[in-house]
Amino acid sequence: MRKPNVAILGATGAVGQEFITLIEERNFPFESLKLLASARSAGTELTVCGKTYVVEEAKPESFEDVDIALFAGGSISKTLAPEAVKRGAIVIDNSSTFRMDPNVPLVVPEVNPEDIDKHKGIIANPNCSTIIMALGLKPLHDLSRIKRIVVSTYQAVSGAGKEGIDELTNQTKAHLAGEEMEAHILPSASLAKHYPIAFNVIPQIDVFLDNDYTKEEMKMVNETQKILHDDSIQIVPTTIRIPVYRSHSESVLVETEEPVSVDAFRTACDAFPGLVVRDNPAEQVYPMPLYTSGQNDCEIGRIRKDLYNERGMNFWIVGDQIRKGAALNALQIAEYLIEKQSF
Amino acid sequence: MRKPNVAILGATGAVGQEFITLIEERNFPFESLKLLASARSAGTELTVCGKTYVVEEAKPESFEDVDIALFAGGSISKTLAPEAVKRGAIVIDNSSTFRMDPNVPLVVPEVNPEDIDKHKGIIANPNCSTIIMALGLKPLHDLSRIKRIVVSTYQAVSGAGKEGIDELTNQTKAHLAGEEMEAHILPSASLAKHYPIAFNVIPQIDVFLDNDYTKEEMKMVNETQKILHDDSIQIVPTTIRIPVYRSHSESVLVETEEPVSVDAFRTACDAFPGLVVRDNPAEQVYPMPLYTSGQNDCEIGRIRKDLYNERGMNFWIVGDQIRKGAALNALQIAEYLIEKQSF
Repeated sequence: MRKPNVAILGATGAVGQEFITLIEERNFPFESLKLLASARSAGTELTVCGKTYVVEEAKPESFEDVDIALFAGGSISKTLAPEAVKRGAIVIDNSSTFRMDPNVPLVVPEVNPEDIDKHKGIIANPNCSTIIMALGLKPLHDLSRIKRIVVSTYQAVSGAGKEGIDELTNQTKAHLAGEEMEAHILPSASLAKHYPIAFNVIPQIDVFLDNDYTKEEMKMVNETQKILHDDSIQIVPTTIRIPVYRSHSESVLVETEEPVSVDAFRTACDAFPGLVVRDNPAEQVYPMPLYTSGQNDCEIGRIRKDLYNERGMNFWIVGDQIRKGAALNALQIAEYLIEKQSF
Repeated sequence: MRKPNVAILGATGAVGQEFITLIEERNFPFESLKLLASARSAGTELTVCGKTYVVEEAKPESFEDVDIALFAGGSISKTLAPEAVKRGAIVIDNSSTFRMDPNVPLVVPEVNPEDIDKHKGIIANPNCSTIIMALGLKPLHDLSRIKRIVVSTYQAVSGAGKEGIDELTNQTKAHLAGEEMEAHILPSASLAKHYPIAFNVIPQIDVFLDNDYTKEEMKMVNETQKILHDDSIQIVPTTIRIPVYRSHSESVLVETEEPVSVDAFRTACDAFPGLVVRDNPAEQVYPMPLYTSGQNDCEIGRIRKDLYNERGMNFWIVGDQIRKGAALNALQIAEYLIEKQSF
């Protein structure tokens, strides 16, 4: 089996680091590996599978001879992804740049792997909250078509990268010491106002759009419709940041076309790859972000019917948003290409 | 104006302490004050309005000559409330014991004050999550009858009393020091299993019932229907504990009989007592629990229509669950009785 020449763009960030961890954990096959980052991080030495690599500054020419380029995210994708494609690489992009481009497949490999084959050089990785929710939706959608979703999220600070993690730690220490909490990052570094997240909740992730929903909320709407190939699915999202380091949780209520029993849904979830059913109220068994962090599978629980609508199903789904919500999902797409020797 | 002889049962607990703080803040009128608690806390000295009181052990006879008895909560209500009533006191009870009793009014004074007049000795204070949500529901319900509610909560640890607060602090310190977190209280002290809440989310508040909803969730259903006098209102709740010290947040989606505009709802909220509109997405203005704690008013924001249903309205409501969610609400009921000289 032919192995690809791989490049990782953004190798020094939170998602880039997770790419490296997962490449080692999964014995991800590669012929050569190139670690790329901004000029600021160039020169950093990183060890992958026992070998030391020097991070190079990412330039258009960096992608000569690269088969698969894993882009960790950020605005750099917009300029460099087309350059990489021009040089023959397949780009798996974790940024939001190309997700809604009709020429770019948006893929969760357990949900719509068939879309990978339609790529024209770029394959997009969905937003973390979308990926995690999609894993719970698909087994239900297969039992009866989903018509409507109401979702409220409980999102970890690492969605805002390493800075988000440090900020939660620093604020927590300050608060325990009776000192003022300093806020520089959340809800989003680029915004005018920042609020403490330690012992607080911030009902804003990303910027607000004209409809008073946030960009994060509308990503959950548009991306979920695209992944499930159904623009008629109604999705009403509320995305919320909470003081958790890692793993997003989501409270989801789904209305399907026909009634689905809890047992049928639980059985379908059990059989679904990437999903673990942790659902036994009598034994206080349910998913919690402290226990899913660093884990590949998402966990689903609190499965129960709507109290009134026999076509309504509630669930609580939790997943590591840096693993399944970002790096793992992208790597699974790459593994699909390698499996099919299609690179 | 005649002033009542007042007793506070559970004076040394979190809600009891808040009763005392609020009595001082509001210049709550009383002729005499008696502080009661369990035998364990009897003998404690507490200062109220500059005068020192010795906490007495609560017994049936403690309520002789008491006009208004404020019960902070707990199972003691079941035995002592009828004894207090027998002795001529009006009991305002913060426990869940009598809330669904058809002979006991369940009251949020801004929402259904008229129910106070129907009491037969006991008036029940609703569950904290219910009170906070009801403040957001009522102005909407007055514009168009509410048909259905989907709510996910983000509840603070002080809902589990002083022990919940201490546990969050101790676990946070342990986690920052790289030590194991010990869990003894949450989700509920009486349960078999306990989980850390620091940097975690626990999707269980109170015990699970046969329908796989928790008791806390079914309180939100049953109590909201009773307060709004409409058993046909559908309520689908998910109640979640998060690592916040104080103030509950709630993500609420409401379907009304007729469409209501965002402007009409915002204006109604503005005019509604006990409710502050904090809602300006362009300026990143929205309610957050860190800023509502210690405050009497609940705050509402993120007001926006359902993306598909013109009869659907989203909002985010945050309130101090020890103040408006417990002690303040009970004290407001007492103030109503004093105002009407009806004790």
